[in-house]
Amino acid sequence: MKQFTKCLHVRTAGKDLIPITHAVTDWVTETGIITGLLTVWCPHTSCSLTVQENADPTVREDIARFFDTLVPEQAGRYIHSSEGPDDMPAHLRTMLTQSGFSIPVIDGRPAFGIWQGLYLFEHRRTPHRREIVLHLAGEM
Amino acid sequence: MKQFTKCLHVRTAGKDLIPITHAVTDWVTETGIITGLLTVWCPHTSCSLTVQENADPTVREDIARFFDTLVPEQAGRYIHSSEGPDDMPAHLRTMLTQSGFSIPVIDGRPAFGIWQGLYLFEHRRTPHRREIVLHLAGEM
Amino acid sequence: MKQFTKCLHVRTAGKDLIPITHAVTDWVTETGIITGLLTVWCPHTSCSLTVQENADPTVREDIARFFDTLVPEQAGRYIHSSEGPDDMPAHLRTMLTQSGFSIPVIDGRPAFGIWQGLYLFEHRRTPHRREIVLHLAGEM
Repeated sequence: MKQFTKCLHVRTAGKDLIPITHAVTDWVTETGIITGLLTVWCPHTSCSLTVQENADPTVREDIARFFDTLVPEQAGRYIHSSEGPDDMPAHLRTMLTQSGFSIPVIDGRPAFGIWQGLYLFEHRRTPHRREIVLHLAGEM
Repeated sequence: MKQFTKCLHVRTAGKDLIPITHAVTDWVTETGIITGLLTVWCPHTSCSLTVQENADPTVREDIARFFDTLVPEQAGRYIHSSEGPDDMPAHLRTMLTQSGFSIPVIDGRPAFGIWQGLYLFEHRRTPHRREIVLHLAGEM
Repeated sequence: MKQFTKCLHVRTAGKDLIPITHAVTDWVTETGIITGLLTVWCPHTSCSLTVQENADPTVREDIARFFDTLVPEQAGRYIHSSEGPDDMPAHLRTMLTQSGFSIPVIDGRPAFGIWQGLYLFEHRRTPHRREIVLHLAGEM
């Protein structure tokens, strides 16, 4: 078994779902690993990862609405407000989604389903420079 | 370290929690791996995975109720409605639960707790044929 | 690649977020692994794991409040009530957070971000003795 690690950099420009499937899959291809396990880790507490339908853009709009209702940005709602009204909601949205995924790699590709896309889920309003840590262990 | 992969097929008949612990554990036993890491991946966006109490069936009823309230199927609530009233709620329920788990294998068995069961959480009303991708790396 | 496993014991004294980052990181250091994959597994159904901001204690207070609203402990709300009013909410809070994490280990340390802490999220009111199962595979 061989191991590889990589850090991806993603610039965000406000609350959004940013597709990272291709960047991740391209890196797996570069390593030459055919069978193995890919791990994607988001080392932040105000953005997260999610797997979602990669086809219809209205899905992403419904997701934004749903989370705005479930975890509202609302003055006075949270004690922790010193970092802005979107910071505590960002922490809670991160808790309710994922900080990491481990995905089997088969035939040289992560085993994403045909409709699955991997997204960085940015919860902050201001632009951020985010890192995504990748690890791959497997055989060529 | 050796690696194994496998695809399980699960037929669903509407919204439900379908136990897959035994199928997964039996496969681990077949491989002969004694110490390692098992990964279970659900390559779909309208069903997911969850770990839950495996004893009392009323727990599963409460789970169904809870998610029906948290992510209602309701006409007009979602923009993405072309695939049926249960499709967008299915995507959101998938986001709030898991698409994958990685579980240590110790003494030839996944380290599930005594009350833990692994379930396919089907979010669609119509029957579906679902796949679950398994990966195991470890030593005999 | 070498593998290591370990069981941590954590005593809880009611609903709380209990930091386990240091215990986990110290164990990784002890193994001598420099590059690898760490997996943390919570083999229970009424407590879970979460990654959260490790700085401001008010964040943890907001988290407690948020989950008390999202998944209330309320007489008559759940069918499964035989194990106490906090048991079914504990199962649901476990489903909405994590039972496990896999985190790349780089330069001898898990790739947690500077603000990230790993917590055992206890959902039961009475004291419990909890186990956390660790697995590490990698190279020295």
